[in-house]
Amino acid sequence: LAVTSATSRLLEEMTWVEVREAADRGAGVLLPVGSTEQHGPHLPLATDALLARDLALAAAAELDFIVAPTIAYGYRSRPLSGGGPGFQGTTAVRGTTLMAVVEDVLGQLIDDGFERLAVVNWHYENQNFVYEAAHLALEAKEQWRRAKVLVTELPFGDLSADTMQLLFGDEFPGWDVEHAGIMETSLMMLLHPDLVHMERAVDDQSERHPWYDVLPVPSDFVPESGCLWRPTQATVEKGEAAWREVVAAMVAALNTDLSTTVDSQRYKD
Amino acid sequence: LAVTSATSRLLEEMTWVEVREAADRGAGVLLPVGSTEQHGPHLPLATDALLARDLALAAAAELDFIVAPTIAYGYRSRPLSGGGPGFQGTTAVRGTTLMAVVEDVLGQLIDDGFERLAVVNWHYENQNFVYEAAHLALEAKEQWRRAKVLVTELPFGDLSADTMQLLFGDEFPGWDVEHAGIMETSLMMLLHPDLVHMERAVDDQSERHPWYDVLPVPSDFVPESGCLWRPTQATVEKGEAAWREVVAAMVAALNTDLSTTVDSQRYKD
Amino acid sequence: LAVTSATSRLLEEMTWVEVREAADRGAGVLLPVGSTEQHGPHLPLATDALLARDLALAAAAELDFIVAPTIAYGYRSRPLSGGGPGFQGTTAVRGTTLMAVVEDVLGQLIDDGFERLAVVNWHYENQNFVYEAAHLALEAKEQWRRAKVLVTELPFGDLSADTMQLLFGDEFPGWDVEHAGIMETSLMMLLHPDLVHMERAVDDQSERHPWYDVLPVPSDFVPESGCLWRPTQATVEKGEAAWREVVAAMVAALNTDLSTTVDSQRYKD
Amino acid sequence: LAVTSATSRLLEEMTWVEVREAADRGAGVLLPVGSTEQHGPHLPLATDALLARDLALAAAAELDFIVAPTIAYGYRSRPLSGGGPGFQGTTAVRGTTLMAVVEDVLGQLIDDGFERLAVVNWHYENQNFVYEAAHLALEAKEQWRRAKVLVTELPFGDLSADTMQLLFGDEFPGWDVEHAGIMETSLMMLLHPDLVHMERAVDDQSERHPWYDVLPVPSDFVPESGCLWRPTQATVEKGEAAWREVVAAMVAALNTDLSTTVDSQRYKD
Amino acid sequence: LAVTSATSRLLEEMTWVEVREAADRGAGVLLPVGSTEQHGPHLPLATDALLARDLALAAAAELDFIVAPTIAYGYRSRPLSGGGPGFQGTTAVRGTTLMAVVEDVLGQLIDDGFERLAVVNWHYENQNFVYEAAHLALEAKEQWRRAKVLVTELPFGDLSADTMQLLFGDEFPGWDVEHAGIMETSLMMLLHPDLVHMERAVDDQSERHPWYDVLPVPSDFVPESGCLWRPTQATVEKGEAAWREVVAAMVAALNTDLSTTVDSQRYKD
Amino acid sequence: LAVTSATSRLLEEMTWVEVREAADRGAGVLLPVGSTEQHGPHLPLATDALLARDLALAAAAELDFIVAPTIAYGYRSRPLSGGGPGFQGTTAVRGTTLMAVVEDVLGQLIDDGFERLAVVNWHYENQNFVYEAAHLALEAKEQWRRAKVLVTELPFGDLSADTMQLLFGDEFPGWDVEHAGIMETSLMMLLHPDLVHMERAVDDQSERHPWYDVLPVPSDFVPESGCLWRPTQATVEKGEAAWREVVAAMVAALNTDLSTTVDSQRYKD
Repeated sequence: LAVTSATSRLLEEMTWVEVREAADRGAGVLLPVGSTEQHGPHLPLATDALLARDLALAAAAELDFIVAPTIAYGYRSRPLSGGGPGFQGTTAVRGTTLMAVVEDVLGQLIDDGFERLAVVNWHYENQNFVYEAAHLALEAKEQWRRAKVLVTELPFGDLSADTMQLLFGDEFPGWDVEHAGIMETSLMMLLHPDLVHMERAVDDQSERHPWYDVLPVPSDFVPESGCLWRPTQATVEKGEAAWREVVAAMVAALNTDLSTTVDSQRYKD
Repeated sequence: LAVTSATSRLLEEMTWVEVREAADRGAGVLLPVGSTEQHGPHLPLATDALLARDLALAAAAELDFIVAPTIAYGYRSRPLSGGGPGFQGTTAVRGTTLMAVVEDVLGQLIDDGFERLAVVNWHYENQNFVYEAAHLALEAKEQWRRAKVLVTELPFGDLSADTMQLLFGDEFPGWDVEHAGIMETSLMMLLHPDLVHMERAVDDQSERHPWYDVLPVPSDFVPESGCLWRPTQATVEKGEAAWREVVAAMVAALNTDLSTTVDSQRYKD
Repeated sequence: LAVTSATSRLLEEMTWVEVREAADRGAGVLLPVGSTEQHGPHLPLATDALLARDLALAAAAELDFIVAPTIAYGYRSRPLSGGGPGFQGTTAVRGTTLMAVVEDVLGQLIDDGFERLAVVNWHYENQNFVYEAAHLALEAKEQWRRAKVLVTELPFGDLSADTMQLLFGDEFPGWDVEHAGIMETSLMMLLHPDLVHMERAVDDQSERHPWYDVLPVPSDFVPESGCLWRPTQATVEKGEAAWREVVAAMVAALNTDLSTTVDSQRYKD
Repeated sequence: LAVTSATSRLLEEMTWVEVREAADRGAGVLLPVGSTEQHGPHLPLATDALLARDLALAAAAELDFIVAPTIAYGYRSRPLSGGGPGFQGTTAVRGTTLMAVVEDVLGQLIDDGFERLAVVNWHYENQNFVYEAAHLALEAKEQWRRAKVLVTELPFGDLSADTMQLLFGDEFPGWDVEHAGIMETSLMMLLHPDLVHMERAVDDQSERHPWYDVLPVPSDFVPESGCLWRPTQATVEKGEAAWREVVAAMVAALNTDLSTTVDSQRYKD
Repeated sequence: LAVTSATSRLLEEMTWVEVREAADRGAGVLLPVGSTEQHGPHLPLATDALLARDLALAAAAELDFIVAPTIAYGYRSRPLSGGGPGFQGTTAVRGTTLMAVVEDVLGQLIDDGFERLAVVNWHYENQNFVYEAAHLALEAKEQWRRAKVLVTELPFGDLSADTMQLLFGDEFPGWDVEHAGIMETSLMMLLHPDLVHMERAVDDQSERHPWYDVLPVPSDFVPESGCLWRPTQATVEKGEAAWREVVAAMVAALNTDLSTTVDSQRYKD
Repeated sequence: LAVTSATSRLLEEMTWVEVREAADRGAGVLLPVGSTEQHGPHLPLATDALLARDLALAAAAELDFIVAPTIAYGYRSRPLSGGGPGFQGTTAVRGTTLMAVVEDVLGQLIDDGFERLAVVNWHYENQNFVYEAAHLALEAKEQWRRAKVLVTELPFGDLSADTMQLLFGDEFPGWDVEHAGIMETSLMMLLHPDLVHMERAVDDQSERHPWYDVLPVPSDFVPESGCLWRPTQATVEKGEAAWREVVAAMVAALNTDLSTTVDSQRYKD
């Protein structure tokens, strides 16, 4: 296994020969899906794309998976969970476009011989679209039905009570507003400190946050800063606690539902 | 207001002259979106479609709204929130199809002169698709942008602590599995008792209910009966408590964000 | 057959267990397709949807068929056969949308195990679109090709000479303008008298009714009332004569071309 | 008007400078839409395409219209009006494809400055699809709404009683089966005698011709020869009688509903 | 082989019986794809469509191929290779539309039993779109994968040095601007002299011709006449030299990659 | 200009506040489009995506442009210019999908206020698709037409004679096979030496390289290694010569056709 261990887990950095080797030995593939979306004045637009990819890489490091190029353009930001389309730099695609990209990429990976695939999504608004895309890919061609696709839409939704307490104290505001908030900021401080500008972080929230949406977007649904919750409470320590659990949950999911066959299980870094 | 008060709030039962009158006086329109989806051996496949329409009618009764024909075919049932496609009678459409229907209908209603519209969804899996459809409708034509669309995707998600306690005690399992469960069964007992077969209800749940999805569907994600939680605990009383709050929340939402203009506010039943 | 005989023929009112039983015994499915379209000042917008569903139910009552939820949104009303889009309440979808809905629903019903399906259309303008949808469904998946789909686009087009004479005397104007006219009004008087406002019916017609269409719609193509022919001549008696023949023709069609196999023929109410 | 009178009415044979001149003077454009479809053993597959174009040219000759390239691929042949897809050489496109072509071409012609357009269809199965395409074109762009589009879907449907008697005697079988039958064969004898093989014509018809369709196509819906009625009764004389009326009806339609403005009326061959 | 030798190679002029015979004996099919695009003041808008068809017919004359109806509407004219959309008469379709037409037609021809197909394109801008369409057709249905499709996108791109010298001397400007230029004009003089107006030809070119495109189109990218190079240098002799090679290259391609099986090779005019 | 000068040119690493500032001052945006495609055993699958992004960054460094996230999934690899789909790791999307992504992203960037945009493509097969996408974006909404889009499809196609001689000597094989060949390998050695495995490079080529394509792909169109020309001749020096010219050409293009207004020109690093 010399070749592989010396190479990147990133499909984009591999040569086709290395990918062939991975497919031949029964490796799996993780497809990160993120967004290009405002994350307040202190986090980069790629926050979701980076975290999706980071998570895929972290899981791949413990299992025999490679990581396909991240889909950086996700579905439209919704005002109550991402600030909405009004922030410059938020760059989204239509639902149909996102589904087409994910469907095509999954299909091609199956064509390469991969049979264990996972969509690793880190953008609240991509939910249902990435699931439908996986559904369509498996239906599109007879020969694609041999593959298994695990779809993760909210990989940070099941933290332990302790971690939740550490992150949010007694005021967990709901995952929809955990956008450029305590957890995402903490994770970015841990994983991409050079891209975090804590000095610009502001604790903000929308004036109103109802259980429904309205179009055109009412201005009081959208906090001026783009921060939906309290990023100034973020710390590296909180990031570490959350990340450990998120990665473990992903690894467990892959182990449980994309378990390798006897033959392919032999691979272990 | 003689004409209107004597007529149905259902657009489908109205004549075009009555709809014109409604549009002219500035009435709003509610568009119920449901599903045709298994709801266990004790509830009809139309459960979501009926509840969406019931809710729209109940809200319309207190405000100047009419109710467009219910969209009865929703997005694919997902295994962990609806049992998935494996149950006979579950009849879904692709995500693109659902979006096209909702977009077209909204556009046509705006063309009729309605400027206050609301999508009343009662099918967990329709989330994001109905939102995108509303977005597309408002973008499709210059003249459609004058309208306001309120999108409700989970109208039962914010019950009071008391009602939650009454319905679920200390074991609220999450809204995803509240499918043919305590709340939906209670509401159907209240609103459509003739279509409920309590003698066939079974308390069931999937063997596994992870935080992610897998395709093709693992069999242990799907309870044999199609019940995702404990329908035998349903009662009319629970239905009343929940319904009162759900309707009130919908009325409040419409009042807050689709408030009529001075001119059109004059109408009141 | 106790379970079935006690239940509705409407799939939407059935439970999934009942639908499974129907599919298992080889029952067929009827899919009504209508419209939400102006039918003059005296008939409801749902006229086509109701008649499509009524016809499906009437045929189902004599055979082993169940009835899927009616598709209530049809293709655009055309000025010369439905008054066109200018009447408030007329709510149509694009041709592509209608085709997608019908294709998806047929496919899903085939997936449930149904092999004998019929589209029961009662909206002049849906012609060709519903046919194409049936074609696409049978082509979409290898396993869907085992089904048979009967497509009825104009189920009232072959009345006997006697009935034609009873309905129209010597002045049959063509089926295109039999819209909110003598036959449809008579049928609604028979089947939905509570939704008919005969006191508002007016005998009207367009100033011009050429053999071609023009866009944008010339105003003299469209009668002010939306009635394309003489609804005041409608009677329950005429409705009975027409309905008897229309239902008989549908039953005969199903018997002839969706004849059950020996096994499934055993079922009889 | 020297330049134009010396040139073809066929846009395809014109140079762009001549088309510009036509648009500038307010000329109209006719868009023939046909099919590539079996027409029995005696008529060419292009029969519909040729007749659509012939009709457009004949009308153009009497008015200030030019003729766009014929759309030769139409919607699927239906068994009861064209023999269906089972005949080699019948080459159709999906409904969505046909609509896209017609929509795009109409839009481009409007972009060129033409404001009076007509779709001249001669293929029974293209009905509704060409209408929807015209509708979509006028909706697609704000600036395209200035145009007027006349849509003819069945230009031979209103022959005089005398001509009907001459063509069919007392046995008019309906326009759906007038496919490679008496009228079409007579017209081809008149207009394209070199492409007619009368010695191979056979009087044929399907064993059954019900009022509904069935998929997959029952074999007794389809006559073996592809002739749906009695081509051996065709004569040039019948062709002349029919053609005269068909052309006159088309010219009258264009005169009535695409009447030129004062300025553009000046043009006359 | 009497029947075939007496008939046209044009599918549109054949009867379905003749097409069946062709498919049965293993003949191939050529599908010409052109454009309706300005070709200066001296060449007709159909230039590309005519040359595509001429080439298909010339190749068919030497082999056992028939020629399907020409697709006359191609992809948008691009300013630097066709003058762009600003010339009246240039009538294009969207990329998606062109792909749909080509995909559908190829699929239908395969359904007829043809297994050797070639797309003969003569419009610079159709490149990639016709290839994708062929790809999609072969993927669309399991049974369509038995066919072979040869795709020619630039059939005049490999002339001999001698012919290049004869045509262009030392100043070959690149194939992108060989639009209504020396070669196309020469070919039209040879093949369609009646449609060429040499007296109107002008030697023209755009002021700028960079290696990239800009939208909206800068006016200096577009020569006023629509001629992108020097049509006045065209001669019949040049046309003959080029045509001989272009036809030979096409015949060689078909011989090499769509070689007939032993059985079907027997056919020879 | 303190904020900007301290930040990345990569939109993905910027915060929304920084993007707003860029849009407000009139900066332009470059959108790199690449592929995930085999580049022989010595170059990574991301080669096209990396070079597209490198070029965008290099040009941005000299002008006031920022760089949007790279579109890493391009159109299908074609056998004669990229080896085709048969190599593991080559991961493409359909033509329609690529067009949708590019159209959506351009539209969103225009919505942000950017009016000077450029598509920087480095994948031979994306030609025409990226152009159509730009066309569609500018047509999609009235307000998007204010923007200017420069489309570069082959940014390395115009090297000087000296550089061509340095790179290829007298044997330039054509840009289609310059895939994982001398130039691309040289550029990667210059720009991403850590991702180049020169020890695995092989001089290879397809057995046949005709002027047309065939589907399914003939095996002799595809070199076993995926190298289409002679990568072992690559050197850093050749890379430097080519890169200097390619960057200069891109900068000149942007200067010429996306020249800033006086106001926005003030910005200069």
